[in-house]
Amino acid sequence: MSSSTPTIKLALLGAGNVGSQVARILLEDADSLQARIGARLELIGIAVRDLTAPRHYQADPQLYTTDAEALIDRADVVLELTGGIEPARSRILQALQAGKSVVSGNKALLAQHGSELAAAAAASGAQLSYEAAVGGAIPILRPLRDSLAGDRVSRVLGIVNGTTNYILDQMHSTGAQFDQALAEAQRLGYAEADPTADIEGHDAAAKAAILASLAFHSSFSLDQVRTEGITSISAEDVQAAEAEGYVIKLLAVCERQGDQVSLRVNPTLLPQSHPLASVRGAFNAVFVEAENAGELMFYGPGAGGAPTASAVLGDLVAIARRMVLGGPGLPDLPTEQLSLAGADQLASSYAVGMLAKDAPGTLSQIAQLFAEAGISIETIRQVKAPVAGGLALIRLVTHRVKDQTLRQTVQQLASLETVQEVTSLIQVEG
Amino acid sequence: MSSSTPTIKLALLGAGNVGSQVARILLEDADSLQARIGARLELIGIAVRDLTAPRHYQADPQLYTTDAEALIDRADVVLELTGGIEPARSRILQALQAGKSVVSGNKALLAQHGSELAAAAAASGAQLSYEAAVGGAIPILRPLRDSLAGDRVSRVLGIVNGTTNYILDQMHSTGAQFDQALAEAQRLGYAEADPTADIEGHDAAAKAAILASLAFHSSFSLDQVRTEGITSISAEDVQAAEAEGYVIKLLAVCERQGDQVSLRVNPTLLPQSHPLASVRGAFNAVFVEAENAGELMFYGPGAGGAPTASAVLGDLVAIARRMVLGGPGLPDLPTEQLSLAGADQLASSYAVGMLAKDAPGTLSQIAQLFAEAGISIETIRQVKAPVAGGLALIRLVTHRVKDQTLRQTVQQLASLETVQEVTSLIQVEG
Repeated sequence: MSSSTPTIKLALLGAGNVGSQVARILLEDADSLQARIGARLELIGIAVRDLTAPRHYQADPQLYTTDAEALIDRADVVLELTGGIEPARSRILQALQAGKSVVSGNKALLAQHGSELAAAAAASGAQLSYEAAVGGAIPILRPLRDSLAGDRVSRVLGIVNGTTNYILDQMHSTGAQFDQALAEAQRLGYAEADPTADIEGHDAAAKAAILASLAFHSSFSLDQVRTEGITSISAEDVQAAEAEGYVIKLLAVCERQGDQVSLRVNPTLLPQSHPLASVRGAFNAVFVEAENAGELMFYGPGAGGAPTASAVLGDLVAIARRMVLGGPGLPDLPTEQLSLAGADQLASSYAVGMLAKDAPGTLSQIAQLFAEAGISIETIRQVKAPVAGGLALIRLVTHRVKDQTLRQTVQQLASLETVQEVTSLIQVEG
Repeated sequence: MSSSTPTIKLALLGAGNVGSQVARILLEDADSLQARIGARLELIGIAVRDLTAPRHYQADPQLYTTDAEALIDRADVVLELTGGIEPARSRILQALQAGKSVVSGNKALLAQHGSELAAAAAASGAQLSYEAAVGGAIPILRPLRDSLAGDRVSRVLGIVNGTTNYILDQMHSTGAQFDQALAEAQRLGYAEADPTADIEGHDAAAKAAILASLAFHSSFSLDQVRTEGITSISAEDVQAAEAEGYVIKLLAVCERQGDQVSLRVNPTLLPQSHPLASVRGAFNAVFVEAENAGELMFYGPGAGGAPTASAVLGDLVAIARRMVLGGPGLPDLPTEQLSLAGADQLASSYAVGMLAKDAPGTLSQIAQLFAEAGISIETIRQVKAPVAGGLALIRLVTHRVKDQTLRQTVQQLASLETVQEVTSLIQVEG
């Protein structure tokens, strides 16, 4: 190592699963990273809350500190891998305002305060990168932002939460009910003890806001994503979906029509032939439709220490190379004025399941109600022999219909004499 | 448009399928491109060989010229979309040496002269980008180079030729022989009148050299890729593969072991469960294995005017943004000293098919020959009832074995009294 090689000082915030792997790679691969960058990366400290906590990976004990602010002051680049809103937000702002570039994997923070952070970076000329925040190791943010920069993205569909994908996958392969599949996922470490953020769709919603902001060169936040989790999905829903040639996936859907964007996360029926349908277990995938590029898919491990660390290191190498070569980074500022589609603009296909009287005329009565509402039906069928009380399970799939119209019609269904209960209402894609 | 907005002058070389789409997008999307870049892109001319040739897309007739050199002299950035080695190489060098950045989709040129062109770009501080050269619209080169820059790629498997993928797909779905499937592909425009570059694997080999150079931060050229096309694949091979749970794909395989790299393109048996196995028709996909990221896949349309133009525009926007902001581009210079694995280092699994006497002891005699060569067999089976002359079709799949050892053993097979003919020898991945 020549004495003239410049050194870039790194502050690592967080020593959890991802932070530990980042520390390990920085130390193990120091030479090849130096060759690629033209500078030495020096890890000058690791900020943790508790100096005595057990570690996934033990770096030099001298590196650990509880004084994150002082560590940031001494660093050139900050790697924020803690999670949560505060103190992560203040620390990233501290770094950016001092002109220090930041790599973060903090999806919740970026989905809520992304535009504040991007503005702080642009103001000081620092770079802010966060490939690790969506899809773990999958390079998706950089391709959306850079590779598709000369195209117009119309839709992004993402399986961006491995926990729910694992649970739904289990329900499909074993016929389990949601609660059983969740318990199994918890036992195997795929779901946390408090699984709320995953199963209620909040984690996927944060990623949807980030994906949409980059795909549409605009700025969206978590609270703009209509979010529904997977807790109401039953084994019967899964069975019916399979019989109709679908799988149920929790999808993040970011859609642009003209200058309007709709953002949602909800369980979705996807045709078994769709490229996203075969994404199994804890894997993630993002499907992108662009005007010229057509249909693209990006697939890989959605979580895990080493994969997520790979994304962090990719961002870091790009930032460090730019520091070595000089010149500003490319800021991520919104260049399009897009608005959120109102609730009355949302439209999709839906699958509706209901318990109804097993009597002549039931199907036609239901079909007539939909026809009167102007909703065309793609298929309607009685799923199986009458269940208890002379009731039959009826399933229908609509063509594309306005969300509001569909929901009003579904409410009216329940008032039909022949329909006892609407048992499921799931969106259909593709 | 404010008068203070800078203008970037573009020379487009080539008005074929891709060049035409690039011209169309530049004119149709001028405003949104300007917003993203902060400069106006001005197409100042389109160099063609023949001013009177019919065009896919007709821009302002004043733009067309046969004097490419003079056009390059007047431009800030050059888009080379002609193909072939000369005069493309000289023109790109003319531009780069004058400090003008270049976007190219010319895989044959880049696979043969990539390091010369990269050195010319680095010397003058110009940028050279060529995302369109591999996988059409699929963002794969930028992710390999940038997103995985902090990781270590160990293997790249690519379906990078749509023509051969379409032909093999047809053979699988219809049971057709190669010649029939090729004729059908030609009829539908998926294969050219002279299909040699596709079916002999040369096109895929060029892409393998480019993928390997970026994945391994080294420099490889077309002539270092061991290449075998799909012309010897028979309907019987396809049928046998399916019976054994495989599909046959023409794969580009770039593999790193330590400081050695092996590069090859050949027909490959891939398990039906492999993510690449379901890549259909003219689609492309690249599967990447990296030390920390794990397994990633990038999927999309591998060719076509608009998709390829999307990749060209993505490169152009990145170059133009960098010009607006100032500072050098990130050069692509090899940072690793890797060597090509010798023929004696290559190893893989293989499937071997042969016609042999339908007699007791035949299987054991064959198995013994492999055992003596130190090759372990994963499966061996008689495919179907005896064919004409009391012969049976026998198939075996080996575990990983050195290429040379396998080929020697296959030659010895033919000298066994029980074996009449080795009918197929195909590599197995995954």
